[in-house]
Amino acid sequence: MAESEKEAALPPKEAFSDWYNELLWMAEIMDVRYPVKGLYVWYPFGFAIRRNTYSIIREILDNSGHQETLFPLLIPENEFMKEAEHIKGFENEVYWVTHGGKDPLDIPLALRPTSETAIYPMYKKWVRSHADFPLKLYQIVNTFRYETKHTRPLIRLREITSFKEAHTVHATWEDAEAQVKEAIGLYTEIYRRLAVPVLRSRRPDWDKFPGADYTDALDAVMPDGKTLQIGTVHHLGDNFAKTFDIKYEAPDGEQRYAHQTCYGISERSIAATISIHGDDKGLVLPPEIAPVQVVIIPIIFKKGAEEVFAACKDVQERLKKAGIRVEVDASDLRPGAKYYKWEMKGVPLRLEIGPRDLQNNVAVAVRRDTGEKDQITLLEIEAGVRLKFEAIQKSLYEKAGSELESRIFDCVDLDEVKEKIQEGVATIPWCGKRECGLAMEDHIGAGILGIPLTPRSKGKEKCPACGEETETRVYVARTY
Amino acid sequence: MAESEKEAALPPKEAFSDWYNELLWMAEIMDVRYPVKGLYVWYPFGFAIRRNTYSIIREILDNSGHQETLFPLLIPENEFMKEAEHIKGFENEVYWVTHGGKDPLDIPLALRPTSETAIYPMYKKWVRSHADFPLKLYQIVNTFRYETKHTRPLIRLREITSFKEAHTVHATWEDAEAQVKEAIGLYTEIYRRLAVPVLRSRRPDWDKFPGADYTDALDAVMPDGKTLQIGTVHHLGDNFAKTFDIKYEAPDGEQRYAHQTCYGISERSIAATISIHGDDKGLVLPPEIAPVQVVIIPIIFKKGAEEVFAACKDVQERLKKAGIRVEVDASDLRPGAKYYKWEMKGVPLRLEIGPRDLQNNVAVAVRRDTGEKDQITLLEIEAGVRLKFEAIQKSLYEKAGSELESRIFDCVDLDEVKEKIQEGVATIPWCGKRECGLAMEDHIGAGILGIPLTPRSKGKEKCPACGEETETRVYVARTY
Repeated sequence: MAESEKEAALPPKEAFSDWYNELLWMAEIMDVRYPVKGLYVWYPFGFAIRRNTYSIIREILDNSGHQETLFPLLIPENEFMKEAEHIKGFENEVYWVTHGGKDPLDIPLALRPTSETAIYPMYKKWVRSHADFPLKLYQIVNTFRYETKHTRPLIRLREITSFKEAHTVHATWEDAEAQVKEAIGLYTEIYRRLAVPVLRSRRPDWDKFPGADYTDALDAVMPDGKTLQIGTVHHLGDNFAKTFDIKYEAPDGEQRYAHQTCYGISERSIAATISIHGDDKGLVLPPEIAPVQVVIIPIIFKKGAEEVFAACKDVQERLKKAGIRVEVDASDLRPGAKYYKWEMKGVPLRLEIGPRDLQNNVAVAVRRDTGEKDQITLLEIEAGVRLKFEAIQKSLYEKAGSELESRIFDCVDLDEVKEKIQEGVATIPWCGKRECGLAMEDHIGAGILGIPLTPRSKGKEKCPACGEETETRVYVARTY
Repeated sequence: MAESEKEAALPPKEAFSDWYNELLWMAEIMDVRYPVKGLYVWYPFGFAIRRNTYSIIREILDNSGHQETLFPLLIPENEFMKEAEHIKGFENEVYWVTHGGKDPLDIPLALRPTSETAIYPMYKKWVRSHADFPLKLYQIVNTFRYETKHTRPLIRLREITSFKEAHTVHATWEDAEAQVKEAIGLYTEIYRRLAVPVLRSRRPDWDKFPGADYTDALDAVMPDGKTLQIGTVHHLGDNFAKTFDIKYEAPDGEQRYAHQTCYGISERSIAATISIHGDDKGLVLPPEIAPVQVVIIPIIFKKGAEEVFAACKDVQERLKKAGIRVEVDASDLRPGAKYYKWEMKGVPLRLEIGPRDLQNNVAVAVRRDTGEKDQITLLEIEAGVRLKFEAIQKSLYEKAGSELESRIFDCVDLDEVKEKIQEGVATIPWCGKRECGLAMEDHIGAGILGIPLTPRSKGKEKCPACGEETETRVYVARTY
């Protein structure tokens, strides 16, 4: 696909916004030239990352008792309009289908912005007894938001192509609360697999999901210090159950309203992974999601070329058999040009094999993340590669963890917060009162991200707005 | 999910339409109670069949050099309206998004009924040189048709939830023709894996895809003798290339229009599989797509119950390790009720283990498709189960093949055609002239399905419409 157009240099990662846009293009993740604002096209290479990422998500959900399902995209207006808070939250950003062929529809149909109002009328029919609980379903679907803000591939979209939304039903408020905790744990595990460390916090009340009792969220800190919300978990109480009449027969024979949770994760998971690990040379991918995990570069001299090619093919076959995604680059490019190309695509490990390596029965292994060179014996190439993958995964996660920690600043007053959020996430005491929170946000010019789920307390301190004593510190950040 | 509601008996398969609707419900494949006509909900069990089926589709496409990708759902009106034939084919069944929030959109957006007009503006940008060919991409997406006809789950939908559409680009008309042949072969292979034999034919000109040079198709013959189109492959010539200006630089340096094909398969693949193999007791699933491949039923007497349960668990663990999807039904139901339940769900193999079986170190294996009972030694239970799977797959395909062949009737005149299409597919000579074809359709009151790709000639015969000699016989059928 017209490689020649892509030889312009990648901007340095310091210029994050330019770097991000250019990288999506040069590494062939997304094409932004689709003729509608906010809609983008997945290149096959980008889609392969998506496939591998969503395999992890499916695996973790399936193994924790979730079942995959699929509900319709189109929601009739009357169902969509049932939950008052929910409507208020979404009415300005819903796309409406009004015509079929040339005829106006009797009832306009919403493109789901999220699926509560598509799923819960069916849950009303499905839920009968406490014995049906917990009901834990999920789907991976496209959802739609008529974004009026600046759109950005993988981050702010009019079509979210890869929304994984789970919807659970339980007997009691406490059961639902336990499910929220499970979900936070599962999402943390998903991000561990992507080597992405997360901030976990409870959103302030004015920032929760429309219709929820509360919202817990996971955020990544992006290279420009802004946070990206990459997972949310909502305790819905019995709010939707009352609206959609979802009742169950309790063990005592009474009909009671059910309690619900929902939680979502999207292709922002990929945006965070790419942004956090990438560098000036391009993508750096955790081995588990890399479409190509190993590239083998034959180092060719006039003599012994055939033996080298044969050895490369042989290593490729062996790694393939071991379940590793591996390519041999036998093209006519110079080795340097090959390195450039595969580094851009984030291939975790490069194996170079030349005549001298063959004599010594080794390959030279070069890590994408550190550039570190090492020899691996060909006799045990499969195990050698696996060890490298583990080392890469471990050090990506550790490096990102230190980077995250270095970007969190415990501040003493609002002016320091204002300064520090230019570089990352600030923490500051907060008494918890709504008016204090809003006043602080107003002063800072940025939002309270949330109350850390793992408290980040420094003992008794004073709320900068009202002076009341509190042991709670909250995250404050500029957000995507 | 309210099992008690599902204890009504399944209608006999002879009453196919009732049987089909009731089976989707009782086996928990689709819930038809979603509050919009033509939109249905996948139950988790149904979705598991879908997952396994689409794994096969992905595997076969990936292994033949196709790459998965993803394009937006929404197509701007101006792009959608570019190809004249194409518009004529779809304009009466396209859903239009006209509003975002409360505001009318500047340009109405079509919900893709199929993605030519979403993909080809990007292909114009992606295709540069003959060296880019063949470009073979596919996506698995939801597409939409404003169906005014009677809708039916998995068969005639307003949201096709699982449309696999491939779009390829080539240099010459002949290259595209070769791709059509490859696609027909791949689809035949997909259906072989589903144990579904197919009719393959070239659609008459008046029934081809709007904008194509010709359309080849795969049809299944359903239990009521009507055919179900379960795959289509279109040679697009350079028609769309001219509309969307898709050109490449030929080896001689000239700019030439590309040639294209597209081909699609949908959840009708699952409708056909279910309909062809199922019986009066419910689903019969080929092992590869069965969500539960083996169910183990402990046969419990007062004595030795613990040993039996332990043995069942042990067999389950061993089969799981061998990659087999297996459940133990340790519920309180009577064995007969358990058989009923798992037969309804199409589990290919039931293993019964009781105290006497344990003494003999065997399990009793009962095939879902034939009811055949057999003993398998526990020592080699994994291999024994695999052999059963192979036997089941083989005999499902053979049985369906004989059934198909018995429903094809070579007829001597149009009156016989009229009679025989009540039971299946008729063949009749046709000279190939449009006016003769249309006159025959008119007389019969049903359509010409197509000219068999593997000729079904009986030597020189006369076209029943004009009397001209021809060696071509065509399929005629009632269709879904």
